[in-house]
Amino acid sequence: MYKLVLIRHGESQWNLENRFTGWHDVDLTETGVAQAVNAGKLLKDGGFEFDIAYTSVLLRAIKTLNLALEEMGQHYLAVERHWRLNERHYGALTGLDKAETAARHGEDQVKIWRRSFDVPPPAVELDSEHFPGHDRRYSHVDPAILPRAESLKLTIERVLPYWHDVIRPSIQSGKRVIIAAHGNSLRALVKYLDNMSDEAVLELNIPTGVPLVYELDAEFNPVSKQYLGDPEAIKAMMDAVAKQGKAK
Amino acid sequence: MYKLVLIRHGESQWNLENRFTGWHDVDLTETGVAQAVNAGKLLKDGGFEFDIAYTSVLLRAIKTLNLALEEMGQHYLAVERHWRLNERHYGALTGLDKAETAARHGEDQVKIWRRSFDVPPPAVELDSEHFPGHDRRYSHVDPAILPRAESLKLTIERVLPYWHDVIRPSIQSGKRVIIAAHGNSLRALVKYLDNMSDEAVLELNIPTGVPLVYELDAEFNPVSKQYLGDPEAIKAMMDAVAKQGKAK
Repeated sequence: MYKLVLIRHGESQWNLENRFTGWHDVDLTETGVAQAVNAGKLLKDGGFEFDIAYTSVLLRAIKTLNLALEEMGQHYLAVERHWRLNERHYGALTGLDKAETAARHGEDQVKIWRRSFDVPPPAVELDSEHFPGHDRRYSHVDPAILPRAESLKLTIERVLPYWHDVIRPSIQSGKRVIIAAHGNSLRALVKYLDNMSDEAVLELNIPTGVPLVYELDAEFNPVSKQYLGDPEAIKAMMDAVAKQGKAK
Repeated sequence: MYKLVLIRHGESQWNLENRFTGWHDVDLTETGVAQAVNAGKLLKDGGFEFDIAYTSVLLRAIKTLNLALEEMGQHYLAVERHWRLNERHYGALTGLDKAETAARHGEDQVKIWRRSFDVPPPAVELDSEHFPGHDRRYSHVDPAILPRAESLKLTIERVLPYWHDVIRPSIQSGKRVIIAAHGNSLRALVKYLDNMSDEAVLELNIPTGVPLVYELDAEFNPVSKQYLGDPEAIKAMMDAVAKQGKAK
């Protein structure tokens, strides 16, 4: 039996402003910092011990992890950062808020993007500041595979190789793993673990800063799945995320 | 030509109280946090870019590194933590302040410990909370090689394998390296790089939170060595460290 803990990063500046963030590298708000510390407190109180941590190359996930590990007194753990755990790339929507998106692309188009599994938003141009090829943190990656815009489907296809090649073998070797990542990269993992349909995953809203604890059997089938913390507070957060209209 | 940057962690709670800290895992003070952020600012202003970071498994060094990397906007770097970069282990002196040490062991004995290169303080018992064998972060290390007390000589012998086996090959492969560590683990590296005598290294006081920049030739001989920042402020910090009487 394996245990695996997932945490979605705390509130970021652009969550607060309801702007599409994606691969844009924004900081946590004060609320986000408090959520990260609280996640660490819940894990500490639950007696959780880890051997390795995985996160993205984006500040809001890294900082959530660092704050939670420090709160747990497990700052000494090995931490692996990888771009495959990044948030979905929102393409040309990056930086736009809800109103700007509707004004530019029309309410109907926005609804299609929101409700579809496999329709990506418009791609960024190669000379856009939001094309990852200009950022040295991705300089070791073939620009041809760097996203210019991702549907949820594309996000999942990009995340899963890291699960299969790195995280799963690590868990299988006996390491106790914690992953701090993003709404959509975590949806990718949850969809895979829970064998969810494409439709069901669109309804899945993972609350920010709340540890999600999986128990997996020897074949990595979920035996149990549980959010840590006060159930009413978690319910309120999930509703808030759902209302936010997927502008993450 | 290689560049290498060393940073000693910012002021910790026990630096402030002038107590022997060693492997005891204390947090930074507010001053220490500010020093770490300032180190990041100096590196950012200097246009430094790194490919990998190394630190100890102690919070004060890890946090100094995290804060500096965040300030530089290089939080996405790979960070490797290793116990061999830990501070000198002060044995049974751990936790004692200057006055307590003198009262317990006598002024003359304290002078011998302070001024000697190879006389370790009294060892901790195996059942002491300060024996690292009880801490799960060292559970993968043979307890027989975990320190119970270290002279500066023993500290250097423990640090250098990590330099030779990990850090040097990493630099040689073309990676630009930053190391955030401790007064005595950094003394080990500086003594080795500068080919300092046992006597000279005892006079070496590395200021907290000030990046030390080495340029090394192809054979890893130092070509230049420079602290970043205002020279007068650095001088004042080095004098302060010297006065502190090596109680780190």
